[in-house]
Amino acid sequence: MEKIKVGILGATGMVGQRFIQLLENHPWFEISALAASERSAGKSYTEAIAGRWKLDTSIPARIEGLGVKKCIPDLDCRLVFSALDANIAGTVEEEFARAGYVVSSNSRNHRMDEDVPLLIPEINDDHLKIVDEQKKRRQYKGFIVTNPNCSTIGMVLALAPLHKEFIINKIMVTTLQALSGSGYPGVASMDIMDNVLPFIGSEEMKMETEPQKILGRFENNKIVMADITISASCNRVPVTDGHLESISIELEKKPSRQDVIDVLKEFNPLEEFDLPSSPSRPIVVREEDDRPQPRYDRNEGNGMACVVGRVRECPILDYKFSVLSHNTIRGAAGAAILNAEYMKVKGLLK
Amino acid sequence: MEKIKVGILGATGMVGQRFIQLLENHPWFEISALAASERSAGKSYTEAIAGRWKLDTSIPARIEGLGVKKCIPDLDCRLVFSALDANIAGTVEEEFARAGYVVSSNSRNHRMDEDVPLLIPEINDDHLKIVDEQKKRRQYKGFIVTNPNCSTIGMVLALAPLHKEFIINKIMVTTLQALSGSGYPGVASMDIMDNVLPFIGSEEMKMETEPQKILGRFENNKIVMADITISASCNRVPVTDGHLESISIELEKKPSRQDVIDVLKEFNPLEEFDLPSSPSRPIVVREEDDRPQPRYDRNEGNGMACVVGRVRECPILDYKFSVLSHNTIRGAAGAAILNAEYMKVKGLLK
Amino acid sequence: MEKIKVGILGATGMVGQRFIQLLENHPWFEISALAASERSAGKSYTEAIAGRWKLDTSIPARIEGLGVKKCIPDLDCRLVFSALDANIAGTVEEEFARAGYVVSSNSRNHRMDEDVPLLIPEINDDHLKIVDEQKKRRQYKGFIVTNPNCSTIGMVLALAPLHKEFIINKIMVTTLQALSGSGYPGVASMDIMDNVLPFIGSEEMKMETEPQKILGRFENNKIVMADITISASCNRVPVTDGHLESISIELEKKPSRQDVIDVLKEFNPLEEFDLPSSPSRPIVVREEDDRPQPRYDRNEGNGMACVVGRVRECPILDYKFSVLSHNTIRGAAGAAILNAEYMKVKGLLK
Amino acid sequence: MEKIKVGILGATGMVGQRFIQLLENHPWFEISALAASERSAGKSYTEAIAGRWKLDTSIPARIEGLGVKKCIPDLDCRLVFSALDANIAGTVEEEFARAGYVVSSNSRNHRMDEDVPLLIPEINDDHLKIVDEQKKRRQYKGFIVTNPNCSTIGMVLALAPLHKEFIINKIMVTTLQALSGSGYPGVASMDIMDNVLPFIGSEEMKMETEPQKILGRFENNKIVMADITISASCNRVPVTDGHLESISIELEKKPSRQDVIDVLKEFNPLEEFDLPSSPSRPIVVREEDDRPQPRYDRNEGNGMACVVGRVRECPILDYKFSVLSHNTIRGAAGAAILNAEYMKVKGLLK
Repeated sequence: MEKIKVGILGATGMVGQRFIQLLENHPWFEISALAASERSAGKSYTEAIAGRWKLDTSIPARIEGLGVKKCIPDLDCRLVFSALDANIAGTVEEEFARAGYVVSSNSRNHRMDEDVPLLIPEINDDHLKIVDEQKKRRQYKGFIVTNPNCSTIGMVLALAPLHKEFIINKIMVTTLQALSGSGYPGVASMDIMDNVLPFIGSEEMKMETEPQKILGRFENNKIVMADITISASCNRVPVTDGHLESISIELEKKPSRQDVIDVLKEFNPLEEFDLPSSPSRPIVVREEDDRPQPRYDRNEGNGMACVVGRVRECPILDYKFSVLSHNTIRGAAGAAILNAEYMKVKGLLK
Repeated sequence: MEKIKVGILGATGMVGQRFIQLLENHPWFEISALAASERSAGKSYTEAIAGRWKLDTSIPARIEGLGVKKCIPDLDCRLVFSALDANIAGTVEEEFARAGYVVSSNSRNHRMDEDVPLLIPEINDDHLKIVDEQKKRRQYKGFIVTNPNCSTIGMVLALAPLHKEFIINKIMVTTLQALSGSGYPGVASMDIMDNVLPFIGSEEMKMETEPQKILGRFENNKIVMADITISASCNRVPVTDGHLESISIELEKKPSRQDVIDVLKEFNPLEEFDLPSSPSRPIVVREEDDRPQPRYDRNEGNGMACVVGRVRECPILDYKFSVLSHNTIRGAAGAAILNAEYMKVKGLLK
Repeated sequence: MEKIKVGILGATGMVGQRFIQLLENHPWFEISALAASERSAGKSYTEAIAGRWKLDTSIPARIEGLGVKKCIPDLDCRLVFSALDANIAGTVEEEFARAGYVVSSNSRNHRMDEDVPLLIPEINDDHLKIVDEQKKRRQYKGFIVTNPNCSTIGMVLALAPLHKEFIINKIMVTTLQALSGSGYPGVASMDIMDNVLPFIGSEEMKMETEPQKILGRFENNKIVMADITISASCNRVPVTDGHLESISIELEKKPSRQDVIDVLKEFNPLEEFDLPSSPSRPIVVREEDDRPQPRYDRNEGNGMACVVGRVRECPILDYKFSVLSHNTIRGAAGAAILNAEYMKVKGLLK
Repeated sequence: MEKIKVGILGATGMVGQRFIQLLENHPWFEISALAASERSAGKSYTEAIAGRWKLDTSIPARIEGLGVKKCIPDLDCRLVFSALDANIAGTVEEEFARAGYVVSSNSRNHRMDEDVPLLIPEINDDHLKIVDEQKKRRQYKGFIVTNPNCSTIGMVLALAPLHKEFIINKIMVTTLQALSGSGYPGVASMDIMDNVLPFIGSEEMKMETEPQKILGRFENNKIVMADITISASCNRVPVTDGHLESISIELEKKPSRQDVIDVLKEFNPLEEFDLPSSPSRPIVVREEDDRPQPRYDRNEGNGMACVVGRVRECPILDYKFSVLSHNTIRGAAGAAILNAEYMKVKGLLK
């Protein structure tokens, strides 16, 4: 099988680097184009990255000498992964979609657009149908699909089977988020050594709105928002990778603790497709008191699973637990790649 | 004025060390006796501590050579501060109280005894009346007074004025707790470097029960528990000192955000007494988005104030905010000393 | 090819865990026996480990239920890897060797015995000849082979080609060592958060003596110590894995900087054997100013390479540079496995 | 006594903040002027700092509303402390000196000028005589005095008495430097979490040259450089404050270990002056194996002492030891203030 050529928009940032790392040796996709800011354009990737490669594997040999282009839609590929900064992602992604590219975006700009799927394929694959509407309305030859924010995605992945089975009415969540989520250079070391930050700009708003769309129903050619009351408090902690979240939920139906655990463990809607980035189980339930922990659990399922632990009753709502997921894999680049893989098996990349 | 002689039980542990540090140059109290385990008894304090002094000021010169005694009630002092391990604190404190000592304890053993005050003098000074009952029932010549757990105390200090003014029905709290709270050696570095622990043994239970007593009413010679539903989720983070807590509350009356802030700012019930360890304001409200932070705010009021920030509406309960307090000062040794200072001005140390 | 059965002595400690992790899917070796302390014996491995598995991959499924035995020489295997504590390793390893087992040990007890190889196969494979002497003298049916201390091994690996080519007279080394080197629970978090420890017990002595043996010549059936003056200063830093060392050396011959770099880059004496744990190059030279760094470089060559950077002239000795190696892979379990692989191709495991 | 009015150039940076903190309640000096970049000029200090106050005490009340001026020599004060960035410090300090101000600078620009003292008053107070030459040559009404780089100053303070007594020929030093030394935002958290950086730009050059001047003799109206061979290797570690250095020295005379310790302990040349910022002893010698440590020892002498430990023989040079000093107090703002205090008692501020 010939591999599908893909491009990466914003290839030099931290999420861009993850795309490159995760796509090395990908069985279906092959990077044929890298694009970044004007400053980087015209340089080889190694020159453009200028020592700012921040992963513990090396730049793949094939990528080192690849020339970086501008973010304009004349890249030699059919699909682009977007890791662009929010200040430019909006229009650049539109230009690519208009020109016929499929855009799998990790940027926040179009996430809440009513004709753009905010996709987690385990959860709301039917939302993909909205792309027909998108193409029609916007007169795009291609289309845009987005994945949720890094702190939203782990939470919703864990909550989706519970919502489906028992209907969630309320979610109270407090996060302990990793540093890589803020890019590079991101958080200054003097701000986080021996410290915790009780605030992450606009993160709580994202966590309180994105799940409504992801868990919404697709009806009459529209995504109808779910009606869940969500309260989020976001903290930054001195951890490199892995967002940990203390979550409490109120459910419409009242399952037993074992029911909750069983539903989490059995959730595996993508099993049949055998997607390259799909973990053997999207939700791993740990029964020990003291798990999940970022350093030990973030790489579960190659960083694509979320790990749930400490499932117990909540005196105020119904159940509470801790959820961990890798914020730059399942929470960013890996999510966009999984979305593309799913679109591929669904025939959307033709 | 002659200083009151005080002893320290469990003088070699981390809380014991804080007692020694905070009592150096205390205007009212003077350490006249140190007591610790059999292993330490008979040695000078410096010998007993054996390099395990874990504070950034030196052992006070006067203390270095002081002999460490056994924890039996023949110490030359009237008041003892207890920093004993829970496995022995119960009986040792009883023996001291029986023998006529006033015991100001940081240990958890007697906190929930119905005839023992769980005292925060800004909040429930009337609970001190229960000591008459305690002496009578138990035939003690002295008595025991306790302070709350380190994660409870900062939270309840911030909540007390709101409870008094608006009546709290529900508290949802997620903690990000410092390492010093687990003593020494406590948490292994391999467990917390680049990591977070989602579990602290029995901490959630303490946070869900102690506030009921602290905020309870003293009626008919009894402490009547408050009736607040509390849900706590406790995490350990890589921070040396300072517990940060994300808290959400439901109130019976519905104040405005500004009302909440004003009530917090105006709270200062001990002002008139001018106690040596009392901060100029027990609650400091910060208006910046990104405060409180452990490294910058834990020493507010010499570690005796709690700092509240990010007061905002909660979509599920009524208001949410972040609270920080120093866990080994206001949350342990400083709390027990403040309790003793308050008892002194109330004539209870005679 | 049938796999060789191997056992692990001290299987529950941190180095024991690394052995298990690294031997999963090993093409030549298969774990058939686990042994540990009396306390663990009789339990399944999962029971024995009791939540203290401290690696970011899971316990291999095949190992979970494997029964843990006592450390006595009736294990079903030919080769044992020893990760035993120094307080028992001495006699236990002797008993196994006497009974006919090949012992590949990471423990320090027999490292400096004159009839025991202190082996780094890239450097002193001829020292293996001493095992004949060892068997004869001690009347062993098997024999003991050791690998160096974690801080020694990275340094000597980088220095060996320079010693061979230019003869090293003096080595001045200051280490910045990772936490995993001290086992579990090891360093208390309160001792290392926002801190550095300027002392590691007996580490400097090991670094000043072990290289003399490793770099010694095998002559007349004896290992003749090298005559290098070494001065080591050892520090512990808040890093999980990866020892970084600032090294300066005086050379007998006076090569150019480029000569030094070339000799380091070209070193690859095991290339012909294609050993499973051997990295494609044992020494990786980085030319950037700011490498090697523990988090980014410790996994070079699957943790079996050492990374050298900042090669420059030293105003006092001749050249100085930074060396990094993974302390629990190349510096412990991986080293012992590589030694065993080398012995296998040399026919010593028959 | 009326206080001397002082200004701070570069008042909003991390060193500028330390000046403000350390000068609050200073018995001799009073801040009357704050100056910073164009961007800050015209604002109140609190507005200019815009949430970037990075110390654990609050901005002094008197300073909060003080207006920030441009860095031009019309400030209402006689003495200015300079915490300017190196890219502008050169000319700005010259303009102030020309206009008649005494400039006590922490910036590196004029440190190595032959007519500018690189002052540590305990060591080379006679170098102050060069200011006459400076004023004459440059036609300044005021003059410039500098203090050394943060990593140099602790080392030289510890070495000066040994040089005086035994003559140092060689210094080999490896540093483990704190984060605050690189300003704000400085080192990105993603670069230093679970990591160490083996490189600090131009730091090694400073450490290899500045001591030559500090320890030089003042002869025939000139500072004659010392003739010491120095080799420095500089590392950045995840510690907030406090530079730790592993140092080895060769001495011309060969003292015993006890002689070395005695000379360090007895060093106290400023004792007679009773300067406000002078510690009771500039060098504190610790005899424990595992000291000094940054978190516990950086505040020794209010951050103005250096702490020496692990004094022992070096197999290559003569003696080796560890030295710690607070890099933003003794290594920056505190050093410049001590220099000013010394100049005051010497009549140079008239």
